[in-house]
Amino acid sequence: MGDDAVEQVARRARRAQRALRAAPGEARTAVLRRLEALLVEREAALLAANREDVAAAERDGLAAPLLRRLALTPAKLATLRDGLRQLAAWPDPVGQTVLRRELDQGLVLRQVKSPIGVLLVVFESRPDAVVQIGALALRAGDAVLLKGGAEARASNQALVACLRDALAREGLDPDAVGAVEDREAFGRLLALDREVDLVIPRGSSQLVRHVQASTRIPVLGHAEGICHLYLDRAADPAIAARLAVDGKCDAPSACNATETLLVHRDFLPHLPAVGAALQARGVELRADPQALPHLPGAVAAGEGDGDTEYGDLVLAVFTVADLEAALRFVADHGSGHTDAIVTDDAEAAARFLAEVDSASVFHNASTRFADGYRYGLGAEVGISTGRIHARGPVGVEGLLTTRWLLEGAGQVAADYGPGKRAFTHRDLPT
Amino acid sequence: MGDDAVEQVARRARRAQRALRAAPGEARTAVLRRLEALLVEREAALLAANREDVAAAERDGLAAPLLRRLALTPAKLATLRDGLRQLAAWPDPVGQTVLRRELDQGLVLRQVKSPIGVLLVVFESRPDAVVQIGALALRAGDAVLLKGGAEARASNQALVACLRDALAREGLDPDAVGAVEDREAFGRLLALDREVDLVIPRGSSQLVRHVQASTRIPVLGHAEGICHLYLDRAADPAIAARLAVDGKCDAPSACNATETLLVHRDFLPHLPAVGAALQARGVELRADPQALPHLPGAVAAGEGDGDTEYGDLVLAVFTVADLEAALRFVADHGSGHTDAIVTDDAEAAARFLAEVDSASVFHNASTRFADGYRYGLGAEVGISTGRIHARGPVGVEGLLTTRWLLEGAGQVAADYGPGKRAFTHRDLPT
Repeated sequence: MGDDAVEQVARRARRAQRALRAAPGEARTAVLRRLEALLVEREAALLAANREDVAAAERDGLAAPLLRRLALTPAKLATLRDGLRQLAAWPDPVGQTVLRRELDQGLVLRQVKSPIGVLLVVFESRPDAVVQIGALALRAGDAVLLKGGAEARASNQALVACLRDALAREGLDPDAVGAVEDREAFGRLLALDREVDLVIPRGSSQLVRHVQASTRIPVLGHAEGICHLYLDRAADPAIAARLAVDGKCDAPSACNATETLLVHRDFLPHLPAVGAALQARGVELRADPQALPHLPGAVAAGEGDGDTEYGDLVLAVFTVADLEAALRFVADHGSGHTDAIVTDDAEAAARFLAEVDSASVFHNASTRFADGYRYGLGAEVGISTGRIHARGPVGVEGLLTTRWLLEGAGQVAADYGPGKRAFTHRDLPT
Repeated sequence: MGDDAVEQVARRARRAQRALRAAPGEARTAVLRRLEALLVEREAALLAANREDVAAAERDGLAAPLLRRLALTPAKLATLRDGLRQLAAWPDPVGQTVLRRELDQGLVLRQVKSPIGVLLVVFESRPDAVVQIGALALRAGDAVLLKGGAEARASNQALVACLRDALAREGLDPDAVGAVEDREAFGRLLALDREVDLVIPRGSSQLVRHVQASTRIPVLGHAEGICHLYLDRAADPAIAARLAVDGKCDAPSACNATETLLVHRDFLPHLPAVGAALQARGVELRADPQALPHLPGAVAAGEGDGDTEYGDLVLAVFTVADLEAALRFVADHGSGHTDAIVTDDAEAAARFLAEVDSASVFHNASTRFADGYRYGLGAEVGISTGRIHARGPVGVEGLLTTRWLLEGAGQVAADYGPGKRAFTHRDLPT
């Protein structure tokens, strides 16, 4: 795709977004319902396109976990349709009033939710992301440009066609969903900061960092998930073992998996049982000198342990002298994604929740709960460890901004100020 | 200041911020009250420091509007103290609950407001910005590094000392407020994306663009304010004239000043009266060929008119065939700051408010109302035309992020899913 063609795709998305946001909310809802119907109608064709991708990936020797992500199944399609039904059932967020305030008699301010504009989303392997992210974007009134992985090309094309056809059949401009396939086109889009409002990379931390370094457009995403589970001196040993096993083993490659176990030194006598439960699930433990004697079969932690997102059945184990030291460890070694404390001491829990400055902070719950679906956001476009805009699991709210609407009767600013009219600044019900 | 010294300032701010956010809300409130008291105690010294700056600036031939911004007066100090009293009277925002949701029995999620972290603020001329921005940052639990203009050096130093002393006297770490004075130190801070979380440039659009191009840290600000006032076919001629005069003349150098008058062709017969009112206030009109015959004394619009933030008593006048064309003009030539319609046609007003995608959109009110103080935000750190995070006038809310807190009783993610436990996802009162 030449530079001009790429710019055209972005410009058409901008134009289509203007129409999409101006359309009534029912039109966007109808698109979501139509998309759900198309996923039923075209199920056989979608699965066939996906089989092509999977067969090619097998020939290319793609690793088993990636093959599992790549494969579409009737069950995965059913889950996508569930998500679409949920999104369609929600009230349309565009135009919802956040704040209403009388500035003076007959001068009323409203802050309302509004689409961000044109999103550029880059993702790897999982073709279901096309539907999840595309649907969230349309619910928010945003246009979206999608760049999927080459290994999912046929699947992505078939799913993008569903999105575009759903728009067209409901009388909306299909260019609100666009696709770019090659890396050069994607690189070109990263330079178009007047045409693209937000970039969302979904994939490895290398991908996220590459995108952040390559664009002046705001980027929503997380570079790393180095999540801690802190076993306090007052931790319940059974809960400690359950949460460690779930955090590490439920989905080791997920960004919300636990990577480092922090252990209060008074808890060390209970550590062998926790370690055994982890080892029974095949976890390799890399422990600091204080923890090592309590973990038969563990190896000594070396360079990088405690600062690594393993994404695998490997867990670092570090000992701390007290809660204060645990807080400092998390601040110094964490990635601000998700950190949890296990304790029966309400005061220690309260302090951990108040002071750990991560997107998600848990007490007696597995780090694996940090997820848009589990939080009840319907779906997620990703998990943000950025500190502005959306933070943590990002659902439709993260794809919205606000505008300020002021309705008056000819008022001018020069009439207000010291010795002149005063503002009433009275909040009104929304 | 050497590179190491600059990094030390940033690291100390990070450490001080951890203590500031962990402190109870009353401590931050006490700092604001203490600051107010210090501004009274030290008024003579502050004014003397400022006289030094003003005298030097006069010798250097600083332009009159800049001298006015530079000068501190007892009235300006009184206004600052009013603002501090207001901020201190507000409930502490840190930890406020935004959302509360039961995920399952005994598993409750809360989204709470939280400080962003370390802010870097660069501003020109106005020393009062030190107190306004510093106080908003402290209210939000953020540390702030301030880079003021060289012309206000003595004033800024004296005011920064007030902020630091207020922190110290309330037992908090004064390094939560830091100052850098030279450009090299500021440039170095822009590179420290692990130590600084948000950059806020307050000044000319050149400054904002320079900052945006020089850092990977998120930037909150507006590059330009090209605000439109659209006189619809159903505009009340008296309101049209009042709003045009206020929008252009109340503060021509402000970013919310009206720069372009859009005129529905059916309104052209009323344009002479609007033009005369503007010319009576010394405004130079630059009109397109359709409007020109209706504006005796106007000049023909040339290159750049209609796309320029004049910041002066100059106004572009362009004619449009209908509302649709006005919407397109604003989309193509506006900067997304503030745009207003004058009309008695409720339908036209509703469409303008719904479809103009600017941070502030007004009906029958002057563009000059786009301001944090007028919106009732207490004060503002600036006006953002960015599309993520805060948009429009930014008060304390724009200096906050959120965190997700989950409290459970040992739940694990593996227990939930198809055929297993289901989430309840029941919203609870906040």
